[in-house]
Amino acid sequence: MMANKEIPYKIYLEESEMPKYWYNLRADMVNKPAPLLDPKTHKPMTAEDLAPVFCDELVKQELDDTTAYFAIPQEILDFYKMYRPAPLVRAYCLEKKLQTPAKIYYKYEGGNTSGSHKLNSAIAQAYYAKKQGLKGVTTETGAGQWGTALAMACAYLDLDCKVYMVKVSYEQKPFRREVMRTYGASVTPSPSMETEVGKKILAEHPGTTGSLGCAISEAVEKATSLPGYRYVLGSVLNQVMLHQSVIGLEAKAAMDKYGVKPDIIIGCAGGGSNLGGLIAPFMGEKIKGNADYRFIAVEPATCPSFTRGKYAYDYCDTGMVCPLSKMYTLGSGFIPAGTHSGGLRYHGMNSTLSQLYDDGLMEAVSVPQTEVFKAAEEFARVEGILPAPESSHAIKVAIDEALKCKETGEEKTILFGLTGTGYFDMMAYEKFHDGKMVDYVPTEEELQKGFSYLPKMD
Amino acid sequence: MMANKEIPYKIYLEESEMPKYWYNLRADMVNKPAPLLDPKTHKPMTAEDLAPVFCDELVKQELDDTTAYFAIPQEILDFYKMYRPAPLVRAYCLEKKLQTPAKIYYKYEGGNTSGSHKLNSAIAQAYYAKKQGLKGVTTETGAGQWGTALAMACAYLDLDCKVYMVKVSYEQKPFRREVMRTYGASVTPSPSMETEVGKKILAEHPGTTGSLGCAISEAVEKATSLPGYRYVLGSVLNQVMLHQSVIGLEAKAAMDKYGVKPDIIIGCAGGGSNLGGLIAPFMGEKIKGNADYRFIAVEPATCPSFTRGKYAYDYCDTGMVCPLSKMYTLGSGFIPAGTHSGGLRYHGMNSTLSQLYDDGLMEAVSVPQTEVFKAAEEFARVEGILPAPESSHAIKVAIDEALKCKETGEEKTILFGLTGTGYFDMMAYEKFHDGKMVDYVPTEEELQKGFSYLPKMD
Repeated sequence: MMANKEIPYKIYLEESEMPKYWYNLRADMVNKPAPLLDPKTHKPMTAEDLAPVFCDELVKQELDDTTAYFAIPQEILDFYKMYRPAPLVRAYCLEKKLQTPAKIYYKYEGGNTSGSHKLNSAIAQAYYAKKQGLKGVTTETGAGQWGTALAMACAYLDLDCKVYMVKVSYEQKPFRREVMRTYGASVTPSPSMETEVGKKILAEHPGTTGSLGCAISEAVEKATSLPGYRYVLGSVLNQVMLHQSVIGLEAKAAMDKYGVKPDIIIGCAGGGSNLGGLIAPFMGEKIKGNADYRFIAVEPATCPSFTRGKYAYDYCDTGMVCPLSKMYTLGSGFIPAGTHSGGLRYHGMNSTLSQLYDDGLMEAVSVPQTEVFKAAEEFARVEGILPAPESSHAIKVAIDEALKCKETGEEKTILFGLTGTGYFDMMAYEKFHDGKMVDYVPTEEELQKGFSYLPKMD
Repeated sequence: MMANKEIPYKIYLEESEMPKYWYNLRADMVNKPAPLLDPKTHKPMTAEDLAPVFCDELVKQELDDTTAYFAIPQEILDFYKMYRPAPLVRAYCLEKKLQTPAKIYYKYEGGNTSGSHKLNSAIAQAYYAKKQGLKGVTTETGAGQWGTALAMACAYLDLDCKVYMVKVSYEQKPFRREVMRTYGASVTPSPSMETEVGKKILAEHPGTTGSLGCAISEAVEKATSLPGYRYVLGSVLNQVMLHQSVIGLEAKAAMDKYGVKPDIIIGCAGGGSNLGGLIAPFMGEKIKGNADYRFIAVEPATCPSFTRGKYAYDYCDTGMVCPLSKMYTLGSGFIPAGTHSGGLRYHGMNSTLSQLYDDGLMEAVSVPQTEVFKAAEEFARVEGILPAPESSHAIKVAIDEALKCKETGEEKTILFGLTGTGYFDMMAYEKFHDGKMVDYVPTEEELQKGFSYLPKMD
């Protein structure tokens, strides 16, 4: 700890200071997240049940809520060294612009080619697939950050990678598609004629531009029907949360090194991968009574799982083939309005985060997208980095909290997660610049319709 | 110096180790680069001649070939801290892939939002404009990296920024345009009806999609006709080379820290801004006889200024309004074939680099673009970073040199400049993936036609 040392603009850990273990927050939770259930029998899923879909080692991680630390394999540590440690940035310029006494830090995860934190779990999942002797993996992608990350990880490990990309994104984001192809992935617009579920959906809805739920169903079908393949997922699951704990562990190590303790920790929340990873070690301390922090999850007003959803068992996908998870959810049939934060358009939330929220250990707010883009632009102009719309949800609330400090004169320390860059989101920025971006808040009726999709539990 | 310390994947200098001075290589050259000449009188340009176009402080830097070090103003140092130090990366994964005994390092300048090294000079030029009390600056941009960098710098300093973007890029790269708008710049497709020269060109060539030369002419006209504005340029000039020396100074400091000495230093060469910046401190040592290095400039086969050009006085722009510079050139009327490295499509070369090349202190090679993209993809798959086509010229030759070491068994140390990222070049990657990319080498006739544009000197 160097409490008196001047804080640099960017804190980089030395390679020797990088985390060597992932932290499994569930091990320290008093109320554990509810188990995954079989969608038909409603019985807890066993390792055997999950083995046809997921890699063996990842199933173990998914089901383990007692082991606090998992050693990160050396091969993954080596890969991490190519783009980690990610910097912890002191937002001096933003503070100055806001004229706030608050001290603002952000953990920047966008400095790798995938453009987001997704790579942290992609390399782990690809590694375990390779170790199991598999030929390849399948996945879905919406906005494309996860697909890109997985393509990069698979290229590195010489593993085949099949990505089902929601058709509307495939067409609107051709550059994302080409990045994945550069890394050797095959990219199929979903729904496709490659799978039974894809054919069925196309027969029922001939002109459909696809959905994440449909792409998941196609990827799962492909993984289970092709010998030597498994399915991998970029968020929602607890294994992903485990891998993403590297974000929080690094952030905490960097802060500890300079004797800084955050008062408020803020993350955007879609499926929960970034938020869960960022808060993990801090939340562990809070649960153990060793420290106190305010945690704020920020979600889009169009898809308010925490703030307006129900805490219930629900399907993880629209096709209702995946296990049931107990989570804050808007219902697997809820269709969020078109928003420019594709990465946050998921009806549910990771089960661990859901439990923490239900236990009152975390707050949540929802924000409209025009305010998010306003904050994004303000941030970009003074801090340089062009943020992804998803990440900008956290920026918006960090600025709000810093402005509250300006009113009260409090010198709070704020930490937020800057998960990624917006290079492939310029169409959204264009709409914002041209004043064509609209906000949408789902009506009570729309929410009730979504809840009607919830499974009946005994 | 820590000669025995293990080399990390990425070497980051501490903030306190960052360069505080720019290095002016010209001060140590025995044969100085030839002076800029007035395009009409052919007399050397004075500070007074240049003042209506460029900021006063930048004119001083441009004309000064005796002062070796210029202190970097504190405001610029603070801005640098937002995205510098840039990492010096040891390409362990590429070495492994190539199975070469060579040790490969690259200085990575793409980790900021502008996506390239251009920001190093953009902030300096914007700073001096602000300090002079100007309202704003004008510039041209082709591929868009320079325009983006300047927009970022101007947003930070609250300076107006008018960018003339070559029309074909404006239309084909709408996302680039939106990044500039996000940073508050006005972006005009060139040729435009906003300037006399634009109107004239449009009258003569109604359907033209523009050129860099035309955009330069429009930006210069705007700067000289609007009160409180000056023109700024992202390459070619010696002031730019001076600011970009921060690349080489940081790279050298990082190598010195670990006791590493490069044998070969490689950079891509368009106007020369990156190459000149990277090699500056190393070349200074070589000239003074303190060390020896091989320097290799890599240019596209479509625009081979060094390898097939003439060393002569030439116009810097197609409009023939800018000063004459003595340089390796293909003639200001030479039109390079459509290539995907827009940043390297310039007919001439910085005068300092031209003199060094003429003195035999540096080598040059030209490479076809399909080989460049092949190298880019190979690099991306193992090193993670998605390189810009321009930067990939250096990758191609670094790989070639590493493979030569594999043949001979020599453990040479190779340093190359990785100037930027390829996020906005995915259309080019797509052509490459689809096998639709072609190579083009100008014929002798085409070269002779270009040379016919050279001014007649007394």
